[in-house]
Amino acid sequence: MKAAFVIFDQMTALDFIGYYDPLTRLKSMGFMPDFEWRICSFCDDVFDTQGLRFLPDHFKEPLDDFDLLVVTGGYGTRSLQHNPDFLAWLRTAESVPLKASVCSGALLLGAAGFLSGKAATTQPKALNELARYDVDVVDRRIVDAGDVVTAQGVSSSIDLGLYLVERLTGRTVRREIARQMDYPYYPFEL
Amino acid sequence: MKAAFVIFDQMTALDFIGYYDPLTRLKSMGFMPDFEWRICSFCDDVFDTQGLRFLPDHFKEPLDDFDLLVVTGGYGTRSLQHNPDFLAWLRTAESVPLKASVCSGALLLGAAGFLSGKAATTQPKALNELARYDVDVVDRRIVDAGDVVTAQGVSSSIDLGLYLVERLTGRTVRREIARQMDYPYYPFEL
Repeated sequence: MKAAFVIFDQMTALDFIGYYDPLTRLKSMGFMPDFEWRICSFCDDVFDTQGLRFLPDHFKEPLDDFDLLVVTGGYGTRSLQHNPDFLAWLRTAESVPLKASVCSGALLLGAAGFLSGKAATTQPKALNELARYDVDVVDRRIVDAGDVVTAQGVSSSIDLGLYLVERLTGRTVRREIARQMDYPYYPFEL
Repeated sequence: MKAAFVIFDQMTALDFIGYYDPLTRLKSMGFMPDFEWRICSFCDDVFDTQGLRFLPDHFKEPLDDFDLLVVTGGYGTRSLQHNPDFLAWLRTAESVPLKASVCSGALLLGAAGFLSGKAATTQPKALNELARYDVDVVDRRIVDAGDVVTAQGVSSSIDLGLYLVERLTGRTVRREIARQMDYPYYPFEL
C-alpha cells in the first residue's frame, strides 16, 4: 500500500499534518507494516501560508503507481486550479484507485476532472467554486463517493485521516489510532 | 508579542502544527498584527518520528526575550529530559511569562524545573513520569496553572492553541479562529 501525499507552495500546514498523523500510524503502530508514503510536489519550493518550509521527497514524478492519493488544501489551490502544468501532473494520478482531499484541495481534484459527476465537499467558503467542476456539492464534514473521499475545512483533515484508516483497516484500528492520538472527537460515531 | 515554538528531533509533527495553526492565525487573520514567532531548536537536524524534516529559524539562541514559549511533544522528549545541554538551553526561557506544552513536552518543562509545585498534565501514558518532577499531575485535556498551561496527547495541541488564543485575545477571537479552521470541537464550552 503506497500513498502519495500532495503538497504545494502556499498550502495550509494543518491540512497536511492532520491526515498525515493518523495515516502514517498505520505503519508506525504496526497495523499495516507495508504502508508507505511519499510527499509529492510539483513546486520547487514548498512553504505553508505562514512561511514554514516543507521538503517533498517525490518531485514532479508521475503519480500513477500509488494506491492512495491525498491532496492537501490551502491558499495555493486558488492559482494551481488554473495551472495547466500542475493539472497535467496531477492527472497522472488518474488510475489511483482511492483519491482524497482536504479543504480547498477538492478544487484541485475537481480541476483535474476527478470529481466529475460525483458527490464531494470542500471548505465551507469554497462550496460554490467547487460546483463549477460538475460536482454534486455536499455540505458535510466528509463525503465518501467510493473512489474519492473529500473533507471540509482545515481541521477536518484529522477526521479524514481517521476515516481513511477505517476504510483501509476497519473500525477497531481507527479507534486504536484515535486513542493513541488522544482524539476524543469524531463526526460519525463515538 | 513574540512566541517561541520549541521543536526537536523525533518530535510528533501534529503536536507542533496543532497549536501552530490557531496561534499563527492571530497574525494572519489580523487579530494581533504584532504577533511574531520563531521556530526554535537546540538540535542540528529536526525530523519528526516518521521522517518528515522541519527547519528551525532560531537555533541554540537564548529564549529569554520571548513572551510565550510552547514546547512540542514526541518520542524525542524521552532522552531530552535527561540531556543537560538541552535543559540548560530550555532554562534560558525561565523569565518567559507564559509557558505551555503539548503531550510529552510537559516532561521537558518539568525537567527544566518550570512545573515545580504546579498543576500540569501530559499525554495519558506519561502521567506517572511527569509526577517525578514535583508536579501536581492532573488528568485533564488542558490544565491552566496561570503562568504555565499544559495539554494532553497529540491532538490536544489544537485545543491548546485555541485555549492560548482565548487567553491572549478573548473568546470572540477564539471562536472566529475556530470557525476559520472549521473546528467544531472544543473541550470547554460550545
